[in-house]
Amino acid sequence: MSISPDLENHTRGYVVPIGGSEDREGACVILKKFAKLCGGEKANIVIIPTASVLADTGQKYVEIFNRLGVSNVASLQIEERLDAERQEFLDRLDLATGIFITGGNQLRLSTILGGTEIAQKIRRLNASGVHVAGTSAGAAIMPEHMITGGATGTAPSRGGVILAPGLGLTNSLLIDQHFNERDRLGRLLTAISYNPFRVGVGIDEDTAIFIDPEQRFEVVGSGAVTVVDPSTLTYSSMSEAAKTDALSLLDLKLHILSKGCSYHIADRTAYSAK
Amino acid sequence: MSISPDLENHTRGYVVPIGGSEDREGACVILKKFAKLCGGEKANIVIIPTASVLADTGQKYVEIFNRLGVSNVASLQIEERLDAERQEFLDRLDLATGIFITGGNQLRLSTILGGTEIAQKIRRLNASGVHVAGTSAGAAIMPEHMITGGATGTAPSRGGVILAPGLGLTNSLLIDQHFNERDRLGRLLTAISYNPFRVGVGIDEDTAIFIDPEQRFEVVGSGAVTVVDPSTLTYSSMSEAAKTDALSLLDLKLHILSKGCSYHIADRTAYSAK
Repeated sequence: MSISPDLENHTRGYVVPIGGSEDREGACVILKKFAKLCGGEKANIVIIPTASVLADTGQKYVEIFNRLGVSNVASLQIEERLDAERQEFLDRLDLATGIFITGGNQLRLSTILGGTEIAQKIRRLNASGVHVAGTSAGAAIMPEHMITGGATGTAPSRGGVILAPGLGLTNSLLIDQHFNERDRLGRLLTAISYNPFRVGVGIDEDTAIFIDPEQRFEVVGSGAVTVVDPSTLTYSSMSEAAKTDALSLLDLKLHILSKGCSYHIADRTAYSAK
Repeated sequence: MSISPDLENHTRGYVVPIGGSEDREGACVILKKFAKLCGGEKANIVIIPTASVLADTGQKYVEIFNRLGVSNVASLQIEERLDAERQEFLDRLDLATGIFITGGNQLRLSTILGGTEIAQKIRRLNASGVHVAGTSAGAAIMPEHMITGGATGTAPSRGGVILAPGLGLTNSLLIDQHFNERDRLGRLLTAISYNPFRVGVGIDEDTAIFIDPEQRFEVVGSGAVTVVDPSTLTYSSMSEAAKTDALSLLDLKLHILSKGCSYHIADRTAYSAK
């Protein structure tokens, strides 16, 4: 799905993909920063727990954000496509200053939300200034093109990734999550090599990028973010390779960014922590 | 250990690190190419099986090279430091056109061979034109600085790699092996970040680089070679990071090279397959 167009007199909201397994019990650096961004005590946060098949995932996040000082938190139990058209859910979303998409299975998210009123509303609200965070599967679904599966390992391969249309909150990045922990460089490289027009971003667990309306992001959390920029790519063997062939990709740019580092997506420039 | 100096009127031999688990039963692309390089039917190959604790590792490679048409093959059973001073072994090495170092444990190799006559002779022979290949641990030991252990995963960390002095057959590369299969990008990045004066090369299984005397290498085999070039690095947080901190490394160059691709180490330039 495509990103919702800019709205006159509105600054877009932040988009905050989290690599999964963010701290929910200790200092909660990422979740606290998101809560503050959404207004702190005055924030109004809506949880979308659709990726998870566990009944209490949404409620757990309600309790976490309550503990972090946000009293207005609701979880919308969207469990099938018909739920994603319910007027009470759409109305509740209109009150939100922030939307949080939980982890689980990104194909559950895309198959239940894809093409529904809720999906369109999330995009429009983000364009109008509402901040949207997602962790694990909730991060994976954010881009226009989402990574939904693939091979593990460092090496790309022709069949090494499964792509599907995502929620379309950003069209300038490809996002992978649990990146260091699940050995996912190869599938990110594969995704980039199919069409090298996007920057690939691999986000470790307990790590997030806060993408601001100017398409700059800052790294927050305890892990690293791996940025693979194909803008300098001089050669790719993807089109000629057989399914099991090792691939060649020449002249990529690579950045490893930890907390405080930032990246300007339009300029393709990385900055160290101030 | 440092590389042996160039000898007048001698072209150096090739250095051929293999990422481990090279095909030994099918087409044997890598081993066949090495045998041919060493003179084919006229080759005289010496096996160094010291990395392995299995008694028959050397003999198995003797049989493989015999099967590939090389009749003059000997395995030197160097099992302790005193073996590495034996005159008969040193004399046998003088006949070699190629030396093959097997897999096993690279610390076994370095602790048994380090500082011995055999180690010095291998370096000198390579400087005089004898080709040296090594697989797995035998590849790891080739550089001046060898990677001998470390963390798995894509992310570098301050304590993420164990380095030790290697055999010193090349001083222009850091080499890691079983690269894709054992998820070793993080430890290669860590090794590079300690001192970004070397190119890092991660070699997949059944894959080799044939480094010629002009310090160009070609990729041979079924996997890929990951080249991380820190010559464009603009920032590293290594010196300030605590042991468990995620690291930042900005503006690295990354190449994924499959068979037929080549790389010029001095120029830091990658070329696609012709």
